[in-house]
Amino acid sequence: MNFWKTLWRKYQGTSQVSNNTKNIHYHTIIQDFHYKNKKITIFLNTNKEINLYALEKLCDTVGWVRRPLKKVKLAIDNSLIIFSLFYTENKEKRLIAFARATSDNTFNATIWDVVVHPQFQRQGLGKILINEIINHLRSADINTITLFADPHVVKFYRDLGFISDPDEVKGMFWYPN
Amino acid sequence: MNFWKTLWRKYQGTSQVSNNTKNIHYHTIIQDFHYKNKKITIFLNTNKEINLYALEKLCDTVGWVRRPLKKVKLAIDNSLIIFSLFYTENKEKRLIAFARATSDNTFNATIWDVVVHPQFQRQGLGKILINEIINHLRSADINTITLFADPHVVKFYRDLGFISDPDEVKGMFWYPN
Repeated sequence: MNFWKTLWRKYQGTSQVSNNTKNIHYHTIIQDFHYKNKKITIFLNTNKEINLYALEKLCDTVGWVRRPLKKVKLAIDNSLIIFSLFYTENKEKRLIAFARATSDNTFNATIWDVVVHPQFQRQGLGKILINEIINHLRSADINTITLFADPHVVKFYRDLGFISDPDEVKGMFWYPN
Repeated sequence: MNFWKTLWRKYQGTSQVSNNTKNIHYHTIIQDFHYKNKKITIFLNTNKEINLYALEKLCDTVGWVRRPLKKVKLAIDNSLIIFSLFYTENKEKRLIAFARATSDNTFNATIWDVVVHPQFQRQGLGKILINEIINHLRSADINTITLFADPHVVKFYRDLGFISDPDEVKGMFWYPN
């Protein structure tokens, strides 16, 4: 798809990581982030080939119900974008935040599964992650970005420019009894 | 994709229309529907290869803003399902209702662009269309079905089992200023 080509090329172009392979899907998003009396570099990763065990571990830290990894993989494959944040420790990637969006690649996108590791919350990372998603979708000419926010994060999204119930449009759910 | 194979096979299997081609994506949904002192048969169509001009005409009847056909085509191609209702007149298909859903094919789906021709409203067709979508998504093991409802159709969706703001979860929108 042309859209993906454009999106990936853009991100590959902005990579600031020393890496000679062609498939770089990450770039530095914060340098000198203070964590446990150290300075770490945080990267934004746009690759769908994410470590599912690391993702499960991350979701565990915020108390989410475990989901079969096979289904998580399928959901990721069928999402338009997967954005995650990580830092490296002993040459290993440490996943600290994740979000994905489904879309018709044209008019609308819906953001799902936004999670930030508790030790990294309230330091602006969630805001950076969502703003990166907004910028991406906007650059792909997708104008309407939607999500369903738990009550404790409604203010967080409002501060990022999201509006709840605009013109009394209601988010509605159907699920099996 | 296996999912699509399953879905289409199911629908192809239920086709009641005389047609010898292998690519039947429609079946009778209502027989003897009263319209203009005639009895017509209404079909449910699950084919993405929909007549875009007929769709534009249908959207005109409910006063929607016109959208570039190229973009509509792209959105349809990138939706998980497209459901429409039609009847035939002088061997021509007459489009009378439409809806589509985006999805991660796994956990969630979101229904968009639900439209029923004004001359066919308030006769249960919208209900049939949405119930068919729910049944489809459920048969594909997708458990959470979401949508954003204009205030005048909130009751319509509530009657179909949709819940607004469950546990105070808020539907939120971001769009360019």
